[in-house]
Amino acid sequence: MSNKPRISKGTRDFLPEDVQKRNYIFEVMRSVFKKYGYQAIETPSFELTSTLMGKYGEEGDRLIFRILNSGEKVKKADVSALESNDLLKFSNSISEKALRYDLTVPFARFVVQHQNEISFPFKRYQIQPVWRSDRPQHGRYQEFTQCDIDVVGSDSLLYELECIQIFDEVLSGLKLPSFAIKINNRKILSGIAEKSGAASFLVTIVTAIDKLDKIGSEGVLKEMRDKNVPEKAIGLLEPLFSFKGSNDEKIVLMSDFLKDSYIGMTGIEELKTVIAQVTRLGLNRGRLEFDITLARGLNYYTGAIFEVTADNVKMGSICGGGRYDDLTAQFGLKDVSGIGISFGADRIYDVLNDLRLFPDSTESSISYLILNFGGDDTLASLDLASEIRSKGYDCELYPTNVKIQKQFKYADARNARFVIMIGEDERNSNEITVKNMKKGTQERVLRSKFLASL
Amino acid sequence: MSNKPRISKGTRDFLPEDVQKRNYIFEVMRSVFKKYGYQAIETPSFELTSTLMGKYGEEGDRLIFRILNSGEKVKKADVSALESNDLLKFSNSISEKALRYDLTVPFARFVVQHQNEISFPFKRYQIQPVWRSDRPQHGRYQEFTQCDIDVVGSDSLLYELECIQIFDEVLSGLKLPSFAIKINNRKILSGIAEKSGAASFLVTIVTAIDKLDKIGSEGVLKEMRDKNVPEKAIGLLEPLFSFKGSNDEKIVLMSDFLKDSYIGMTGIEELKTVIAQVTRLGLNRGRLEFDITLARGLNYYTGAIFEVTADNVKMGSICGGGRYDDLTAQFGLKDVSGIGISFGADRIYDVLNDLRLFPDSTESSISYLILNFGGDDTLASLDLASEIRSKGYDCELYPTNVKIQKQFKYADARNARFVIMIGEDERNSNEITVKNMKKGTQERVLRSKFLASL
Repeated sequence: MSNKPRISKGTRDFLPEDVQKRNYIFEVMRSVFKKYGYQAIETPSFELTSTLMGKYGEEGDRLIFRILNSGEKVKKADVSALESNDLLKFSNSISEKALRYDLTVPFARFVVQHQNEISFPFKRYQIQPVWRSDRPQHGRYQEFTQCDIDVVGSDSLLYELECIQIFDEVLSGLKLPSFAIKINNRKILSGIAEKSGAASFLVTIVTAIDKLDKIGSEGVLKEMRDKNVPEKAIGLLEPLFSFKGSNDEKIVLMSDFLKDSYIGMTGIEELKTVIAQVTRLGLNRGRLEFDITLARGLNYYTGAIFEVTADNVKMGSICGGGRYDDLTAQFGLKDVSGIGISFGADRIYDVLNDLRLFPDSTESSISYLILNFGGDDTLASLDLASEIRSKGYDCELYPTNVKIQKQFKYADARNARFVIMIGEDERNSNEITVKNMKKGTQERVLRSKFLASL
Repeated sequence: MSNKPRISKGTRDFLPEDVQKRNYIFEVMRSVFKKYGYQAIETPSFELTSTLMGKYGEEGDRLIFRILNSGEKVKKADVSALESNDLLKFSNSISEKALRYDLTVPFARFVVQHQNEISFPFKRYQIQPVWRSDRPQHGRYQEFTQCDIDVVGSDSLLYELECIQIFDEVLSGLKLPSFAIKINNRKILSGIAEKSGAASFLVTIVTAIDKLDKIGSEGVLKEMRDKNVPEKAIGLLEPLFSFKGSNDEKIVLMSDFLKDSYIGMTGIEELKTVIAQVTRLGLNRGRLEFDITLARGLNYYTGAIFEVTADNVKMGSICGGGRYDDLTAQFGLKDVSGIGISFGADRIYDVLNDLRLFPDSTESSISYLILNFGGDDTLASLDLASEIRSKGYDCELYPTNVKIQKQFKYADARNARFVIMIGEDERNSNEITVKNMKKGTQERVLRSKFLASL
């Protein structure tokens, strides 16, 4: 019966202090999301396999956790599929459900299924765990929490602005000192591809151009050549080799480069509108940066692309997102534009921890611990505990009348802010003894006066 | 590509209003749990199968959702086990992980694994979903949220008192008008079994005796005989046939009946102590009832047994719990007494819904919706939206300058409390128009005055 207990690889237990810190992050997010009119929804942890499969590419599908059919149903196992090494077919024969891989696909399914119960544009937030059978490694877990907001049913650029404001407000609310909100636009990338005539090298090209400041135009040229970008394309891209400066300077350069690309100029116009709005309204601690190297979700995003990185910490992006079209088409609802962003809770947690930005309130502690001296003292202590709680404070009574040292040891372990003692002396004079555990000071006060002071 | 989307049987989507109502319940619980010094922990959604299997009896094991091994690992499928119909062995060959079936076993595993990081008595609360492959039916889901508190590492009866106080405070906090907190003690049941000499009929016996008020002693006798309780046992049990009245009256009767049963009298003493404390401190809206028919978890509970039922609603128990010993022994940590209670969130939700007890604050609504009139009006509206939010209120700007009827329709659907309009007129006089959607009234006020009033 006795096994050394352990948890499954890639999963985590959260101790009280972890939970407090994580909830602090979620609470800041929630309060900002709500202020912008986003509503919480929740979807089931598992979906029909058919809802999830085929939505994440081959690699993604492979990482979906599948649930084994229950009881007698496993009898339907397709052994011949196993023997012919058709593992997908074999798995399908014994599994109909799968754990959520992200919040986006279930959200799309939700929108289509409940389209008559919700109003568009539909603004929702969702903070729930997702599961991926990635190989566990430092900072990568098989179970982690995603925090997403999305608006579907509108292509208004006001939502691009809103996403940037929300990035800024959440991270400023978490007291992150400074961070870059990087923005790009899929249409600008399409324009660059169009102009260069080398669309398949798009990522190589923008990555190289991004290094201008560090390696100069000679370096950029070399990198492109090393990576086999065609000479003709390199020649066409030359105007971009001076691509640097402020957002406005970059926009001027890029506008000139893309001037006869319809799609590229559409992207520039969108970007200009958004940057102008952000400049008008201002940000708290965030800084908006036009970054043509942002090329995440190339097959997915159709307009703005976002990524956020914290300054002065070694950590990849802590948030991301962008505009997409037709997320819901895969479930039969067409022509619904949307935009969504996602906060990486685990990375934000690590950043706040590294920079010591968690407030004291996330410490795992108790306000009042009352010692237990037995008999009538215990009864008096029980009464006081009830009264302290009725004032809204947290209070614990030590459960048994053991040696005072042991009780104080527990008070220390629980990080009690005040220890209260009620013995016969105190009872006879309607007083209590209160010890301030941080200062180490101790005083006797009238019980009534103490309660009135809470 | 186009499928009519649906969710897996026995699971639920939660729409914004559902989430708000559920979070209201969880928040009331959390605030009470914290006031009593309970700390939140979280455990992973899936555990190693070996951690869970064999802990819930054969029926329970059957209801555990298992996760299929990923990728190549399914090749290890034990086909011969399948062919010989050893489904458990077959499942074990392709599955190493399983979804949490309850919060209790993972908690026991947690306590043992982290015993050097926590202090005893360890008081924790945990609000997380669990999964069971029960046949879905009305009010029974395959995914549902459990809300548990437990204390391990102390056998002090003060925690029995605390459990009762917490039942009372949570349900009173949720404005439930009246409810019964039923208490029994496993040792009293053991005493009855000992005295009757018919231990295997224990549940039949106590169930019959409970019907005294309704069916009289003749009826109780008949029921016992119908269910084959031995005549000798019935004779021995006769003193209990007058078992009714107040808690005190019941205790007197039971004390007399159990007077030469050591274990029975220990149970009576425990019960008396707890009832005396509760009587001293008083309850809010709850009522403590000694109920000898409470026989839940007979193989599990060792002391107090609890169950809570709401008055005036057709619904089974909405909470339960009790004292257990050695929960952690199965993971190698012996002699740790504990007590735990659980709140049935789904049933509590249904009760609050039936009795219309959810507060208005759980309505899915937005405080301010600003209409979009385009151009400079939109800019002025964006500014105001930012200012309203900076005052802590939730506010949305309609995304595009479409017909005002369409914008008002959205305001209705979003249940907006106030709609704000800023047109050229308003801008020129530094005013805004505010419509109170509940009253239907509309007024023009100075922008500055409006903001100052927030």
